[in-house]
Amino acid sequence: MAKFLVTGGAGFIGSTFCDSALAQGHQVLCFDNFETGDEFFLNDAKKTQAFSFVKGDIREFDTLKDTFQKFKPDWVVHFAANADVRRGLERPRRDLDYNTIGTWNVVESARLSGCQNVMFSSTGSAYGEPKVFPTPETCPCPEQTSLYGASKSAGEGIISAYCHGYNLNAVVFRFVSILGPRYTHGHVFDFIQKLRKNKNELEVLGNGKQLKSYLHISDLMRGLWVLINLNPKGYNVYNIGHDDALTVDRSISYIIDELKLKPELKYTGGERGWIGDSPRIQLECSKLKKLGWGTEYSLEQGVRDTVRYLIKNEFLLDRA
Amino acid sequence: MAKFLVTGGAGFIGSTFCDSALAQGHQVLCFDNFETGDEFFLNDAKKTQAFSFVKGDIREFDTLKDTFQKFKPDWVVHFAANADVRRGLERPRRDLDYNTIGTWNVVESARLSGCQNVMFSSTGSAYGEPKVFPTPETCPCPEQTSLYGASKSAGEGIISAYCHGYNLNAVVFRFVSILGPRYTHGHVFDFIQKLRKNKNELEVLGNGKQLKSYLHISDLMRGLWVLINLNPKGYNVYNIGHDDALTVDRSISYIIDELKLKPELKYTGGERGWIGDSPRIQLECSKLKKLGWGTEYSLEQGVRDTVRYLIKNEFLLDRA
Repeated sequence: MAKFLVTGGAGFIGSTFCDSALAQGHQVLCFDNFETGDEFFLNDAKKTQAFSFVKGDIREFDTLKDTFQKFKPDWVVHFAANADVRRGLERPRRDLDYNTIGTWNVVESARLSGCQNVMFSSTGSAYGEPKVFPTPETCPCPEQTSLYGASKSAGEGIISAYCHGYNLNAVVFRFVSILGPRYTHGHVFDFIQKLRKNKNELEVLGNGKQLKSYLHISDLMRGLWVLINLNPKGYNVYNIGHDDALTVDRSISYIIDELKLKPELKYTGGERGWIGDSPRIQLECSKLKKLGWGTEYSLEQGVRDTVRYLIKNEFLLDRA
Repeated sequence: MAKFLVTGGAGFIGSTFCDSALAQGHQVLCFDNFETGDEFFLNDAKKTQAFSFVKGDIREFDTLKDTFQKFKPDWVVHFAANADVRRGLERPRRDLDYNTIGTWNVVESARLSGCQNVMFSSTGSAYGEPKVFPTPETCPCPEQTSLYGASKSAGEGIISAYCHGYNLNAVVFRFVSILGPRYTHGHVFDFIQKLRKNKNELEVLGNGKQLKSYLHISDLMRGLWVLINLNPKGYNVYNIGHDDALTVDRSISYIIDELKLKPELKYTGGERGWIGDSPRIQLECSKLKKLGWGTEYSLEQGVRDTVRYLIKNEFLLDRA
């Protein structure tokens, strides 16, 4: 039994992680500002004695530090972030505040409380627009193309320096986009939103040919636990994603099939959906696979699962 | 004639840059908090009509923003930083504040004022402990080993995302350690300080075998101007350093020869001088050389020039 402090623990991925930790008999403290997370996702967790939560923001160092001091976690599992990649340019300080400074606040709080193990959800966007596909962890020094990728990459750097300087142990995962139950933002969400407003027409950002890898939340969870259970020393980076990739067009075909709609597709054009969008994301995950991990869900299942979940929990679409 | 806003413009490198810009007939505004910089270094600059300075700190966004708004620079040449690599672990928020958030403050101020050209002094330390020597700009995705390297790398990422998102143009230089007149911190400075206290014994951090490339300030200046004059569009990264490298021991031999001393050397041991110290720094600079740049000073000249300058300006040693 270990104690996990989960930042962003009320979000899509964080709350699923809380549930999986509780199911294994661990003690869990969820730290979340409930900005994009939702108490609804904690309904199961809240039934467990071993679960507690603090409403707090990782941008507030003192609150975070106090929470660490009181809970004394063995692990901090750090999901809290500004995950709105697309709108970075509208509010250019946001990624810095949440993802870079926020990550410093988290590891500094960990250090001060004596917590020695950190798991960090980084992103394939930290590779910018790589020239090598699938992209390995050791690809050439990337050039950042989005404030989001830059801020997460900066978070990685801080964690790495902490590992070297203060003997923390860290596992950094570079995630592709995650699909499945509790999914609340991203292209599937956006497309369904648009189709609720107009079922006959669907605006598609870019040319529909952007090729991206995704991963089902269930496959992600198994990957995270492989490394948490191994608890490797020092600083460790792993890509995590599916070998398969979907074009936006193929993804749309599954979505509209689930919804039984046949909208006319209107492309905004260009190979990027927005400035800083990576036209292709596909990660080389053999480093993680060597530890016995593999995917169980196809990307088609991932997209269809997501659509079905959102249809069943329509209030998530309403509140956005 | 162009307008240059130089952050850290009263420092070793910054003030030399101000002088070189003024000598070419440009208009220069120096922005410095005079924490490590010194008005003494601005004595020549202050004689020129085209020069002005603002005492301000890059951590204060509003001051910086106002300075940009009033001066309306064509270029911001961003040197201001916490350059105390070694003490990062004693004050772990310092590199984040000065080098990451400070750099965001600089590029955001540039953007808001309509300034489209940025030069940024990054560092070879951003490569952490690379496996390839000499290290090219495209070496494998580095692992940060110091808070300093992490914070400068994060600054690079922010600038890069700004170039992609807001059409800024940037030239990022990854510097080795710079030597020459106005040098006020680093190993030559530290050794002379120690020898003033005790000329018979010299404590050496590490085993004396750390192998590092340096560069004379005069060679650095010519390199910076090659790129500023070319004014390339988008985001551009260049290593800048000497092909030769010095062990700490060889460097000491030049220093004590200049000082005419023969101290006994006491090594603290280990291949790193301190945690986060890169035991070897040597940058592959062919990208810059292809543009016609090359070094004129040997590393021996660099070290000897530095020692002579410090002997002549002993007050710099006193104030530290």
